[in-house]
Amino acid sequence: MDKILRIDVSAEGGPSCKEEPCGDYAGLGGRALTSTLISKEVPADCHPLGPENKLVIAPGLLSGTAAVTSGRLSVGCKSPLTGGIKEANAGGQGAQVLARLGYAAIVLEGEWNGNDLYKVFINKDGVNIEVANDLKMLTNYQLMERFQDTYAKGAMLSIGTAGEMRLSNSTIAVTDRELRPTRHAGRGGVGAVMGSKGVKVILLDGVGTKLREPKDKEAFNKANKLFNQGLKDHAVTGQGLPTYGTNVLTNVLSEAGGYPTYNFKQGSYPDADKISGETQAELEIARGGVSTHGCHRGCSIQCSGTFLDKDGNYVTKQPEYETVWAHGGNCGICDLDAIAKLDYLDDNYGLDTIEMGVTIGVAMEAGLLKFGDADGAINLVNEVGSGTPLGRILGSGAATTARAYGIERAPVVKGQGMPAYDPRAVKGIGVTYATSPMGADHTAGYAVATNILKVGGDVDPLSSEGQAELSQNLQIATAAVDSTGMCLFIAFAVLDQPETFQALIDLLNSYYELSLTADDVAALGKSVLQNERDFNARAGFTAQDDRLPRYFQRESLPPHNVTFDVPDEELDKVFQW
Amino acid sequence: MDKILRIDVSAEGGPSCKEEPCGDYAGLGGRALTSTLISKEVPADCHPLGPENKLVIAPGLLSGTAAVTSGRLSVGCKSPLTGGIKEANAGGQGAQVLARLGYAAIVLEGEWNGNDLYKVFINKDGVNIEVANDLKMLTNYQLMERFQDTYAKGAMLSIGTAGEMRLSNSTIAVTDRELRPTRHAGRGGVGAVMGSKGVKVILLDGVGTKLREPKDKEAFNKANKLFNQGLKDHAVTGQGLPTYGTNVLTNVLSEAGGYPTYNFKQGSYPDADKISGETQAELEIARGGVSTHGCHRGCSIQCSGTFLDKDGNYVTKQPEYETVWAHGGNCGICDLDAIAKLDYLDDNYGLDTIEMGVTIGVAMEAGLLKFGDADGAINLVNEVGSGTPLGRILGSGAATTARAYGIERAPVVKGQGMPAYDPRAVKGIGVTYATSPMGADHTAGYAVATNILKVGGDVDPLSSEGQAELSQNLQIATAAVDSTGMCLFIAFAVLDQPETFQALIDLLNSYYELSLTADDVAALGKSVLQNERDFNARAGFTAQDDRLPRYFQRESLPPHNVTFDVPDEELDKVFQW
Repeated sequence: MDKILRIDVSAEGGPSCKEEPCGDYAGLGGRALTSTLISKEVPADCHPLGPENKLVIAPGLLSGTAAVTSGRLSVGCKSPLTGGIKEANAGGQGAQVLARLGYAAIVLEGEWNGNDLYKVFINKDGVNIEVANDLKMLTNYQLMERFQDTYAKGAMLSIGTAGEMRLSNSTIAVTDRELRPTRHAGRGGVGAVMGSKGVKVILLDGVGTKLREPKDKEAFNKANKLFNQGLKDHAVTGQGLPTYGTNVLTNVLSEAGGYPTYNFKQGSYPDADKISGETQAELEIARGGVSTHGCHRGCSIQCSGTFLDKDGNYVTKQPEYETVWAHGGNCGICDLDAIAKLDYLDDNYGLDTIEMGVTIGVAMEAGLLKFGDADGAINLVNEVGSGTPLGRILGSGAATTARAYGIERAPVVKGQGMPAYDPRAVKGIGVTYATSPMGADHTAGYAVATNILKVGGDVDPLSSEGQAELSQNLQIATAAVDSTGMCLFIAFAVLDQPETFQALIDLLNSYYELSLTADDVAALGKSVLQNERDFNARAGFTAQDDRLPRYFQRESLPPHNVTFDVPDEELDKVFQW
Repeated sequence: MDKILRIDVSAEGGPSCKEEPCGDYAGLGGRALTSTLISKEVPADCHPLGPENKLVIAPGLLSGTAAVTSGRLSVGCKSPLTGGIKEANAGGQGAQVLARLGYAAIVLEGEWNGNDLYKVFINKDGVNIEVANDLKMLTNYQLMERFQDTYAKGAMLSIGTAGEMRLSNSTIAVTDRELRPTRHAGRGGVGAVMGSKGVKVILLDGVGTKLREPKDKEAFNKANKLFNQGLKDHAVTGQGLPTYGTNVLTNVLSEAGGYPTYNFKQGSYPDADKISGETQAELEIARGGVSTHGCHRGCSIQCSGTFLDKDGNYVTKQPEYETVWAHGGNCGICDLDAIAKLDYLDDNYGLDTIEMGVTIGVAMEAGLLKFGDADGAINLVNEVGSGTPLGRILGSGAATTARAYGIERAPVVKGQGMPAYDPRAVKGIGVTYATSPMGADHTAGYAVATNILKVGGDVDPLSSEGQAELSQNLQIATAAVDSTGMCLFIAFAVLDQPETFQALIDLLNSYYELSLTADDVAALGKSVLQNERDFNARAGFTAQDDRLPRYFQRESLPPHNVTFDVPDEELDKVFQW
């Protein structure tokens, strides 16, 4: 991980590539690297699909090592969805293989000729780029069929039809341990930026690569053991997530009155139990699937699973809580098979499940179809994947769909759809939605932990008190974690168990022979956020962009009948430290 | 004009209305009134289609008087297209009748029930509002057929299907002397705001009303005579516009290399002569139409006309230069009959011809149809009018169309499509496009006059020097003129002839018994702009919004091979006075 691979798609005679030392970016990984590079090299006022934008793909500082759950990949660019800086974070095998191949980052840059599609192949011997127009409009699973022998010991990063059409909702798929394109750098339309560089697929072959070796092996192994034990000891990472997956949250949120239902009209879903994690796990196991599974080798949390149909055939990986919510409760759909089908289609076309589900909710609100119409929802996703005019509206995200149909109620911040927690009843996450440089993003500062799960403290979700401070602390910590390659789910154990937090720091220190303290980690997080905020300010963002849509202040949410009442001055304090 | 009519559509049991004194807005007219009211009463961060937005319809200070060419109507709101403040300005009979009825403004406000359409009827005896669901999805010409007996001595303000669908490109039509819906408050989607209040049509009956009487009749008549003579004496208002209409500019701009052709790819159009004002006037006359005609009674410039088909049947009013360009050269279409048909369709559905033409140019760039495909362009406008998914993309404007089709080259500022002058070869208008609070708008500060027509001085269109100052002065003057009800075309004579400018001031002074000076007029213009800038700042606009898209700096425009190179610091000076 001491080099950066730059692929210039505007070079004469087709794309050229060069490897260079990390230079200014040495010592950075994951989100710290992507956000620093984008902030430094991309003019903030450029068009996201124009030649000045760049796509940066970076494993974390600990990716490719023996550290558990270190396989997160960061993808950065100026976002076509938000118009601001973006780091989209994916699981799967990509980060581990890329790190083992020695790359701190791949950067796609330059002006595409607008016609040829490219295939990039990387193994231990180097890089090969070819024109591959036979891949045009292939889906991610079709690409898997085509290339799985090539990346059998590695990973594939690819865009489906959505990214190729440069839709604002389009992902970069990352393959999992079963070589399936089920993990996605999902949010903000990063697939469109890859599409705007003409790169359809990046094949990573890990044959002949080795685990990255720490400088102090003994200390590293000790820290890793303690860290892993910490994850096992915590109720969320040791029990809840492995047993039920992220979807364990459906019942919790619906009971708390913070589960956005029918396009954020109410906070509890009467049919929540039909699509809950408990129901889902039972169904998966009954059909011969798996409900405890990791998205990449080295994961010890194992929050995922496999969803089979009633005949025992593979449908998709276990749909995440956010996906089950977006296509489920948010759309009034309480059918796990339909939701699994929607999840598969999103993965196949390369669509973010949150944005797609929020968009369908908006379409239902606009009267295109009825809440609860599962077949209708499936049809809509197929429209997106095939690029019909309706599909292009929907594939441009919830805000554009609301514009095209002339309605106000689009639950978005900075143009990005809100995830599965209503900001009125979980006000801490509302602060994160409002203020994160990423747009509405639960992972940017997961205040649900402290508001609802009582991890890392206890802040009343219905009160506006203390939410800004909570969100600030979590956004700082998250920006740091997102730079390590660690899965964000470690945060539960790290927040509650000081010895697990120390083990994480020890992992970094022993790997790189550093002497970081907790303060240094916070400083890293702040510096990442500051780069992102600076970029957004140069792109024209103001305090006005750090707000929820006004109707969250106007319309009260049952059952608690609450509005979002965190004062603007509190929101403006989040980045004052 | 001493009262404001407020129609609250959220009142229980259907809309209620009340008349109130002008209060804070006394002494204001036209754009000064709309922008002051919107800036004061509408929360800048509201959704343009939400209950907090208002629609203000205001005649100018001199509307309804005997002053020549004083029939312009201002329509203000927060714009669904730009997200900023909007004043859209229309000719036709509306302003004169509304002023004679005694209203300084009509304000539509409150939260619509989302279902019922309303019909508003106003005559000398008062206001009547009725539910009129039988009008649903009627076009403007269909409304004309339905109501022309009602407004035979007045005017109709209406939204077509586009406004009813709340599309970001939708107008409010104003009928002309022949009772046809050919004049539009076109820019910025004001029709969608009227649609979001559920008001389909406002019928103004002028029976029993009189010309508004000046306080000093003798001085007024004298000033009016001098003013009128000034218009006759100037080459543009006395000869060019009456003879050829605004389309006299086609050859001029194409020869100057500033005529945006094929979606702003080149600055001259080889087929310009086929669609020029000269050709158009000849064709109109040969077919028995009219090429010299005023849009409202009292106009002495007479820049309009009537376009008949080859069999002598009415098609539309004489398409304006901007329309002929937008649907013509910008799309590579050199067929005046096709352009007239497009103009008719735009009027009928209630679409801004500039935004619609720019959008079709973007669609051509995106590959939906070929440049020059007139039938294809007609089909696209019909898609918009009938609200198909493709129509909803296109009806949301050029920026949304570019987003949906994943392309960079959308010639927009603040989300609004650029008019018929390429900012690279007419740099003064480029400064206006960039900095006007309205988004890209030629009428906001028509530097073409001085850059190309050498009216009001001579500033080299290809040089970046002096353009910011030119645009500043013109924007200030325009904001004042837009408040008087005067047609902006008076500016040619006012800029070149000091005595005509003085006559304009004397008209105001004698009408209202004031003692305004030229400095007071400039102060009015500045105050209007300041209100608009303040609103936009509160809505989240920054200097970054006062920029052209980057590709105008990157791509050079033939034949002069120029880029837009006015420095950002110059742009930022426009509102420093």
